[in-house]
Amino acid sequence: MNVAFIGLGNMGHPMAHNLLKAGHQLTVWNRTPEKAKNLESAGAKVSNTAAEAARNVDVVFTMLSDDAAVESAVFGKRGVLEALPKGAIHVSSSTISVALSQRLQQEHSEHRQKYVAAPVFGRPEAAQAAKLFVVAAGIPDAVERCQPLFAAIGQQTFVMGTEPAMANVVKLSGNFLIASVIECVGEALALVRKHGVDPKQYVDMLTSTLFVAPVYKTYGNLIVDQKFEPAGFKLRLGLKDVRLALAAGEMVDAPLPVASLIRDHALSAIANGAGDMDWSSLALVAAKNAGLK
Amino acid sequence: MNVAFIGLGNMGHPMAHNLLKAGHQLTVWNRTPEKAKNLESAGAKVSNTAAEAARNVDVVFTMLSDDAAVESAVFGKRGVLEALPKGAIHVSSSTISVALSQRLQQEHSEHRQKYVAAPVFGRPEAAQAAKLFVVAAGIPDAVERCQPLFAAIGQQTFVMGTEPAMANVVKLSGNFLIASVIECVGEALALVRKHGVDPKQYVDMLTSTLFVAPVYKTYGNLIVDQKFEPAGFKLRLGLKDVRLALAAGEMVDAPLPVASLIRDHALSAIANGAGDMDWSSLALVAAKNAGLK
Amino acid sequence: MNVAFIGLGNMGHPMAHNLLKAGHQLTVWNRTPEKAKNLESAGAKVSNTAAEAARNVDVVFTMLSDDAAVESAVFGKRGVLEALPKGAIHVSSSTISVALSQRLQQEHSEHRQKYVAAPVFGRPEAAQAAKLFVVAAGIPDAVERCQPLFAAIGQQTFVMGTEPAMANVVKLSGNFLIASVIECVGEALALVRKHGVDPKQYVDMLTSTLFVAPVYKTYGNLIVDQKFEPAGFKLRLGLKDVRLALAAGEMVDAPLPVASLIRDHALSAIANGAGDMDWSSLALVAAKNAGLK
Amino acid sequence: MNVAFIGLGNMGHPMAHNLLKAGHQLTVWNRTPEKAKNLESAGAKVSNTAAEAARNVDVVFTMLSDDAAVESAVFGKRGVLEALPKGAIHVSSSTISVALSQRLQQEHSEHRQKYVAAPVFGRPEAAQAAKLFVVAAGIPDAVERCQPLFAAIGQQTFVMGTEPAMANVVKLSGNFLIASVIECVGEALALVRKHGVDPKQYVDMLTSTLFVAPVYKTYGNLIVDQKFEPAGFKLRLGLKDVRLALAAGEMVDAPLPVASLIRDHALSAIANGAGDMDWSSLALVAAKNAGLK
Repeated sequence: MNVAFIGLGNMGHPMAHNLLKAGHQLTVWNRTPEKAKNLESAGAKVSNTAAEAARNVDVVFTMLSDDAAVESAVFGKRGVLEALPKGAIHVSSSTISVALSQRLQQEHSEHRQKYVAAPVFGRPEAAQAAKLFVVAAGIPDAVERCQPLFAAIGQQTFVMGTEPAMANVVKLSGNFLIASVIECVGEALALVRKHGVDPKQYVDMLTSTLFVAPVYKTYGNLIVDQKFEPAGFKLRLGLKDVRLALAAGEMVDAPLPVASLIRDHALSAIANGAGDMDWSSLALVAAKNAGLK
Repeated sequence: MNVAFIGLGNMGHPMAHNLLKAGHQLTVWNRTPEKAKNLESAGAKVSNTAAEAARNVDVVFTMLSDDAAVESAVFGKRGVLEALPKGAIHVSSSTISVALSQRLQQEHSEHRQKYVAAPVFGRPEAAQAAKLFVVAAGIPDAVERCQPLFAAIGQQTFVMGTEPAMANVVKLSGNFLIASVIECVGEALALVRKHGVDPKQYVDMLTSTLFVAPVYKTYGNLIVDQKFEPAGFKLRLGLKDVRLALAAGEMVDAPLPVASLIRDHALSAIANGAGDMDWSSLALVAAKNAGLK
Repeated sequence: MNVAFIGLGNMGHPMAHNLLKAGHQLTVWNRTPEKAKNLESAGAKVSNTAAEAARNVDVVFTMLSDDAAVESAVFGKRGVLEALPKGAIHVSSSTISVALSQRLQQEHSEHRQKYVAAPVFGRPEAAQAAKLFVVAAGIPDAVERCQPLFAAIGQQTFVMGTEPAMANVVKLSGNFLIASVIECVGEALALVRKHGVDPKQYVDMLTSTLFVAPVYKTYGNLIVDQKFEPAGFKLRLGLKDVRLALAAGEMVDAPLPVASLIRDHALSAIANGAGDMDWSSLALVAAKNAGLK
Repeated sequence: MNVAFIGLGNMGHPMAHNLLKAGHQLTVWNRTPEKAKNLESAGAKVSNTAAEAARNVDVVFTMLSDDAAVESAVFGKRGVLEALPKGAIHVSSSTISVALSQRLQQEHSEHRQKYVAAPVFGRPEAAQAAKLFVVAAGIPDAVERCQPLFAAIGQQTFVMGTEPAMANVVKLSGNFLIASVIECVGEALALVRKHGVDPKQYVDMLTSTLFVAPVYKTYGNLIVDQKFEPAGFKLRLGLKDVRLALAAGEMVDAPLPVASLIRDHALSAIANGAGDMDWSSLALVAAKNAGLK
């Protein structure tokens, strides 16, 4: 297929590369063009604007950091919206708000373009290894057409509904659940540490018995080792995602009290200097609240 | 070894049976003696009192429902404390308070008896299959002597420290973490359901990607299916354990805000009739708070 | 003075009327012009647009329902910004976000206009009786010039700083504190009711001893009488203000955990049908959580 | 009347003194007898045991620090229970648990004695000035007989029901409401301080407008001045009362989420060294969470 990829950050770059490796024709665009260099040597065409990239493609992916970046690349001057051919598909893989996803759907529909939301779970290493989990939603035939592309970037695709925004809700709720693991393991660790239990042994026990999921192992060990820098995912961005989950709740009058608590703890951690640390540093709040250093 | 087993409920009965099968000499006692019948046919001696059971043994296990039952069986008239030989070991596998565990340690020590706390993770089926996880703490040589017994009832033993109460803290914190999974998955499900996502599909996605731990699968499905009866573990008992976790926190000035929130939601669920349902019914609160039936 | 007044709702109408009675020349504008009728008979000039109203005045007041209404009346076509004379003052009395207040300050400054934030505490009856409390902030000489106008609408003016947005923060924090009274009295009432205490007697005791403030009396009685309709102030609007307080906290990394809790309870009440009831209906959540009808 | 008074601390001493001044015959007992000295010179009889004090009286007051002290003075050896004449009244003014109040009622009833719960609101200065608020509950004729005594120690008596424990619930809920004022004002102050508002001016505004109740003035100023020592009422004791309120909620399945939050913040403050400070130091948590010193 003829594919464009917009946004070549830690996640987008390897995703684009995997699409190229799978044999698709690729045009890329990034705000800072340096990131496109080695994709160019691998055979990708590099565009000067988002519009130019989206001009003649079947599918354009966007993988950007937040709502503002997506709005600018899609609705801005020389953006995707004005250039994408009728019938072509915009696949939004960014973690964005439900409200923006709904607006994308409406605007693309008004322009006779198609829109699929397909956020992903997985960190940069998973993106490189084409092992992402793709959570997709949209009109069935549009989703269907994208399946070979999803197969090129991920290990499995889950279709969650025909309304694109459903995929965004699922992604945000998933990030909330990850944050809840950090918070709860942080609280449990503060408790057992104050009772003299060795935290390393504790996490080993948990993650080899009831909590064998990688998310417990990854974050449990980061917390125990207090290895909050360099950040795999900054607390500031984690807070943003928790806010988007809360906003998704507000849209449908669904409170998320644990998410509220995490938001408050994240603010507290940021107010005390942890904004640029890994979001596992959220656990510092539970430790400090228990009088631990 | 010469072993006594006190408390033949859903968990204690299969544990006792596995000790018998492993070739140990077993004396049992239960408040309601009927439960001892088939163990008797399998070769166990049945006592009339806890004291009689504990009289000549190397090790006496207690596996009872709460602090009051343990206090009665140990400190009461014709209880374990007055009968257990000097140097013999009391293994407490019940989920009890840290405070009671500390008192047991002290009283046994004054009576020149040994005390090991060895609560277990796992449900009745795991107890039957000798697949429990044993979390033990106590004086090393006492723990060491019990290892063959732990091997007979569980798949793995984790020694968490030399203070018996540490094992109780670890057990309570583990139950708190399980409750937090119920709460958080319940909130996430309320959110995605209100956005039209199919809850079954959602849980399938979660538990085949980031949250592969059995605890997510088990409770995710119970919540989706609203299969709260018959109760595997009653909400009322779940609340008791969360309270014990909070109390363990109070002892060392460690707040557990998510546990506080779960406690409040459990009270709310019980006030609205869910006390005898499975503790996964905690998720009803998140659903009702979002206006779902 | 030559004064314009924009927004003639429950609060704005009596405020405008009091300015007229104090002898100021008044021009008014309201989106639905009927509301201006009796002010016209009392001597006010009625304009067709916000711009026309603001054209030749010394001071223009805006008293509108939310950020969107203020943005439209000020920044929109035929809005205040394009018409207000250089050196004239915009007094914003609406309960708006801190972010919008900061934007107003900047835009007016760029247009060489002056900007004073002067939200008020008090309900419509207080507005009629010219008994409002005015919370003002802005450049001292601009605030000074407005003092006679504030005196015409309120019983006391508090100058909280030279940055206009400070007044908005103070207003939002005040509304948060009122909401906290509703929430906490609601919880206390649920507790004492379940113990058999007469709720009326309870509120009488509280409000004639430690909690003599009118806010406890007003809301305590509304909750006891379950008199949630007609709404003095709708829960939906109350939630909006709590959100604005939370947003003001996010701007400076200050968590407000009780506000988070109130937000969650308000969402729950709205999800269960209380959106158009008085915001004292927030107390329904505490009652339901305790299993009370 | 012939009255005994047990417990001559900061509160009990002035209460006893006022009973004496009102012309009643008074016998006193205190664990540390020095405290009784100046009451003796004022005409009181001093006993060596609680039992001796209660032997021949119409009414015995207890005003002690916690459940344990009351249990010891009433149920212990040479305690009130064994000595109080049939038909005589025990007035318990201490802040104790609902559970203990229920037990007192039952035990006194079994001993054909009467029992009235009559906790008080007010600080030591109010006790000296006979300006306490008395919250009483019990069998009407017993309460009636005590009215002259209540009149001697307080400015007003509120009869809250015929079950004595109701008065304790009311007292505990009142202390919860005071704690909620500290928490909420603490949060609001953290917010406005971070936006540059002068905290002193802010509290002055609040307490001369919507929040004129003394409780806002007292605690608002303590927080602003950070005057946490010497403690008027220690945070550790404040936490105890919040726990008793939570326990009263648990008895009837009534969650108190703001009380849970306060408990967690109090634990956090205590874990960080504030246990012996005034309970207004609870506000340190909100300040620290916002990154303020």
